[in-house]
Amino acid sequence: MTEFIPAGSQFLSLPSPFPMKRGGALHGARVAYETWGTLSAEADNAVLIVTGLSPNAHAARNAGNPEPGWWEAMIGAGKPIDTERWFVVCVNSLGSCKGSTGPASINPATGEPYRLDFPELSVEDGADAAVAVVHALGITQLACLVGNSMGGMTALAILLRHPGIARSHINISGSAQALPFSIAIRSLQREAIRLDPNWNGGHYDDVHYPESGMRMARKLGVITYRSALEWDGRFGRVRLDSEQADEDPFGLEFQVESYLEGHARRFVRFFDPNCYLYLSRSMDWFDLAEYAEGDVMAGLAMIRVPRVLAIGANTDILFPVQQQQQIADGLRAGGAEAEFLGLESPQGHDAFLVDFERFGPAVRGFLDSL
Amino acid sequence: MTEFIPAGSQFLSLPSPFPMKRGGALHGARVAYETWGTLSAEADNAVLIVTGLSPNAHAARNAGNPEPGWWEAMIGAGKPIDTERWFVVCVNSLGSCKGSTGPASINPATGEPYRLDFPELSVEDGADAAVAVVHALGITQLACLVGNSMGGMTALAILLRHPGIARSHINISGSAQALPFSIAIRSLQREAIRLDPNWNGGHYDDVHYPESGMRMARKLGVITYRSALEWDGRFGRVRLDSEQADEDPFGLEFQVESYLEGHARRFVRFFDPNCYLYLSRSMDWFDLAEYAEGDVMAGLAMIRVPRVLAIGANTDILFPVQQQQQIADGLRAGGAEAEFLGLESPQGHDAFLVDFERFGPAVRGFLDSL
Repeated sequence: MTEFIPAGSQFLSLPSPFPMKRGGALHGARVAYETWGTLSAEADNAVLIVTGLSPNAHAARNAGNPEPGWWEAMIGAGKPIDTERWFVVCVNSLGSCKGSTGPASINPATGEPYRLDFPELSVEDGADAAVAVVHALGITQLACLVGNSMGGMTALAILLRHPGIARSHINISGSAQALPFSIAIRSLQREAIRLDPNWNGGHYDDVHYPESGMRMARKLGVITYRSALEWDGRFGRVRLDSEQADEDPFGLEFQVESYLEGHARRFVRFFDPNCYLYLSRSMDWFDLAEYAEGDVMAGLAMIRVPRVLAIGANTDILFPVQQQQQIADGLRAGGAEAEFLGLESPQGHDAFLVDFERFGPAVRGFLDSL
Repeated sequence: MTEFIPAGSQFLSLPSPFPMKRGGALHGARVAYETWGTLSAEADNAVLIVTGLSPNAHAARNAGNPEPGWWEAMIGAGKPIDTERWFVVCVNSLGSCKGSTGPASINPATGEPYRLDFPELSVEDGADAAVAVVHALGITQLACLVGNSMGGMTALAILLRHPGIARSHINISGSAQALPFSIAIRSLQREAIRLDPNWNGGHYDDVHYPESGMRMARKLGVITYRSALEWDGRFGRVRLDSEQADEDPFGLEFQVESYLEGHARRFVRFFDPNCYLYLSRSMDWFDLAEYAEGDVMAGLAMIRVPRVLAIGANTDILFPVQQQQQIADGLRAGGAEAEFLGLESPQGHDAFLVDFERFGPAVRGFLDSL
């Protein structure tokens, strides 16, 4: 059980007990976060970023950690999220293994890692934990709430459960409810981990580790994070040269296979498998329709936020652009001035992490207009 | 090692040795096939069907086997492929475990199953084996050659390697070359099988069987054979009732998960894992560009066939409709009168197996016009 906590992380102790939506409570839990820029005297220039499943809170380099972050191109002086103007906060999701309390953390009741004794995790729990950080920083209302992927779900939960928390919202490749295709993909990823004998009901260690299951889960993730269109141009049918090719029967032969293998190697030992299972399932459970008698549009329309940009890539198969269109339409029905932007990006669900040419100006334009 | 041979199968002994494209040869190999209708005195009314990865040759009920076949709605008296007019032949792919010789068959040199000693299998080998059946039946030229999915590749290989073999061709959800997204999916399916300790380098038996690997491979297959759109309407977020739901942590909860589980159960013990690996990889290797200095359109244009219908579903993510459009364009460049039809079917790659409302009239219309 390893946690992967970036240097320079800051921590907020959550109220103890911290009640969980589906029952139970955490004791002595914490949230890791990082900040950029300066909070104004009126505390009115704060931008909160809530993330996808795997990122930590180190979205960009800062005083505490000079390493580039996972959204380095987007956050900084003069960048789309301009730290000369905005005080930017990024939180690590509750349930993660990157500084916030999760299944890999020590359960104070036992002195051992929680593993599967961690209470059932909902996107809403992560939302409440993120709001605790906002309030602890002396911020009553965010200038903008930005959520990517799973963070797009978290952001909607924040807005619904904490009315008035934000003057504006950017929802990037998010969704108001999990749909069956993405549930099927995530269910299969979890099954790959659970079928690995080394998972052992969550009782693995560094020696007996569900490496095969995590490898399968990550490769399936990468396949669904990108798009066929991008890969046609990027890999085509190019083969590995003979030194790289795998001698095993049915081993690696094409560049695209080697690309997946590289992604898997960089992930399987750097994300805790039980945390992965918990966060993955929390996304399947997320459904704003729960709050409105089964009507997801009505759930969105319950949210009050003045201005909204919902944005995605038209090649995204995991959170298809129809879901971002739905977010804009639903929030507009709730009174928001809401814009939907389906970008012609070839890079699928991951486009916001790589296609800064398209996502940068969209985010910059919206924030500049505030 | 089990073969799954339908009752009433007919068999052709292939020439021995039967040379394989990538090297080696089969000795004493055979192809299973079935027929419907009556061959005309002129032998000019034959329709050959070559299949996807998993089907057997029992495409519809016939005198030898009254069980419904996998394309029952399409083949029969008065059906789109009308057996009152056409003499229909369907072959089981070489390399399969359903009657034709494959890795699960006995290697005459050892008296044991081939397993991984089976020579490397190409789509082209299956093409040559299918043509051997055509010739053995006394047919010089097919009225129409129909290929579905992998069979769409096989059909193109038949046309290229056996000029003049067919007066017309229907290519359904096929492709002229494997592209990286589908290679990635198939590579991951094969990896799931290979990572299962029970696969054991191909040396499994019924007791020690790579059940988990086959389960993962099949579920991933089903996910990519269908479409998100269909599943939104079919499953939405409906949950299993409490009796069906799985008590395991992270077990089955949504209907879509139970649907995948059902598909997996019906497959994992009814398809030989080594045969699956061989056939899957043969698709990755398939590339008509090989025949034309890397230019797939030029490869298609080398084919001579007078009339063509290339048809697919616009929700297919595994063999996207752009690939059927390419087939029509390429064959037209070779002189064919070629039509492309991208059907608005929600059912993805599998649409030709279920959406008879759309695929039936398209196939019927083309055949009627001959």
